[in-house]
Amino acid sequence: MNSIEKLNKKLNEGKHICVGLDTDINKIPKHLLNKENPILEFNKAIIESTFNDAACYKINLAFYEKDGIDGIKNLEKTLEIIPDDVFVIGDAKRGDIGNTSTMYAKSIYEYFKFDSVTLHPYMGIDSVEPFLEYKDKINFVLALTSNKSNSDFEKQKLISGEFLFQKVIKEVNLWNTHKNCGIVFGATNLEELSENIKSFEELYVLLPGVGAQGGSLEDIVKIFTANNKSKYIVNISRALIYADDTENFEVAVSNKLKAYNKVVDNFS
Amino acid sequence: MNSIEKLNKKLNEGKHICVGLDTDINKIPKHLLNKENPILEFNKAIIESTFNDAACYKINLAFYEKDGIDGIKNLEKTLEIIPDDVFVIGDAKRGDIGNTSTMYAKSIYEYFKFDSVTLHPYMGIDSVEPFLEYKDKINFVLALTSNKSNSDFEKQKLISGEFLFQKVIKEVNLWNTHKNCGIVFGATNLEELSENIKSFEELYVLLPGVGAQGGSLEDIVKIFTANNKSKYIVNISRALIYADDTENFEVAVSNKLKAYNKVVDNFS
Repeated sequence: MNSIEKLNKKLNEGKHICVGLDTDINKIPKHLLNKENPILEFNKAIIESTFNDAACYKINLAFYEKDGIDGIKNLEKTLEIIPDDVFVIGDAKRGDIGNTSTMYAKSIYEYFKFDSVTLHPYMGIDSVEPFLEYKDKINFVLALTSNKSNSDFEKQKLISGEFLFQKVIKEVNLWNTHKNCGIVFGATNLEELSENIKSFEELYVLLPGVGAQGGSLEDIVKIFTANNKSKYIVNISRALIYADDTENFEVAVSNKLKAYNKVVDNFS
Repeated sequence: MNSIEKLNKKLNEGKHICVGLDTDINKIPKHLLNKENPILEFNKAIIESTFNDAACYKINLAFYEKDGIDGIKNLEKTLEIIPDDVFVIGDAKRGDIGNTSTMYAKSIYEYFKFDSVTLHPYMGIDSVEPFLEYKDKINFVLALTSNKSNSDFEKQKLISGEFLFQKVIKEVNLWNTHKNCGIVFGATNLEELSENIKSFEELYVLLPGVGAQGGSLEDIVKIFTANNKSKYIVNISRALIYADDTENFEVAVSNKLKAYNKVVDNFS
């Protein structure tokens, strides 16, 4: 199975929750701090208790890069723990001129062997193209993000009458000749989601912002279902992985993921 | 000397060339390939032959990340070779929601101890703010980049009549309360540089695109000088560090940098 097939298989099974591994040593259960490698221990417990129910994982590179070489080692070891048939997004938000994006793509897809990446659109197609050459990966381009200051630029209106994020979506559709493109659309923007979902065409959609950021899973599922679309994954990081801080946290996390899956089932 | 003071000192000495360490094993002189660590050997030779004449260095993280842990080790060792009083930009093009950008800022400023970073504006102030809290660093936000597809989004006209990159410059000026902001403005956009330079106010300006990408150093210096502005650095990577592939490449590189400095002197 290539990367796209891995994700499609889970989507076909009705799985839409992406588990975000934004692992922060200050937030993991305290009893793990006695272990030799608390972060890896935590990730291992989370992965082993969720991989059957998750659609995929999203690894936020910032949380590993902050610890330098030790962090990169933890990232590598975490990737080794995730079963081969599970799709993993490298949430790296990269984007640079062509020859530099080529190097970033080598890092993400050849060194770490992620199935997918997140990318900034600002610099245009040149900065995304080197990633698109990996035809069986999924390249999620930021469209409308979940944070408050998405109004600074993403929601600026162009002279054409469309918002910048709408122009981005339109362009990403044009870049999607290999069917390996997606967009990031923040789950905190329900109104914009309803208004724009038809423009997503064949793009995969990654929706962060449920949980700590306040987005509603139920509403998202309803909107995608009403529009007959199933190529969406809803990322939940903090609200899921830190659901409990007892010695049995992995049971609580597993139960919480199952409850999220039930919400998806009930409204789709 | 803090980071900003380091750069100001060089600018006051009339130094404006930033040496870009986009080190690619396929482009360095062939005789180095017999060495134990060709990339580090190359960087060491470049740094030792240029640090007296350079305004600063820019390290393109992609070129190191592509080699995973070995690459990060080379990045760390390269940073150790650069003298303490020389300003170093981490060209990382980062940008994410607040709690994630906080982690990226820790990586850039606390782990690697760079003096400066490059950032994507797309997600707005939330994504930049964690970097701005490091008050003695310089945070370069992408405005108008040097690549062809800057027309895809950066040069889109907003309903207000201004281009997106102009709106970015305006916002970055508002974010500059600690005088620790800058913009990236591609040296390939001379016309736009002339037309917009007055709007740069107190921002530092990083100009990539001279050399391999075709920008003209002479013209840039003329424009900044005519506008009485000196807070600019012109990055040159490929055209400088790969100027020669003989065993004496470092002499050729040093001479080329001195020639660039002469251009700066002659036109400022």
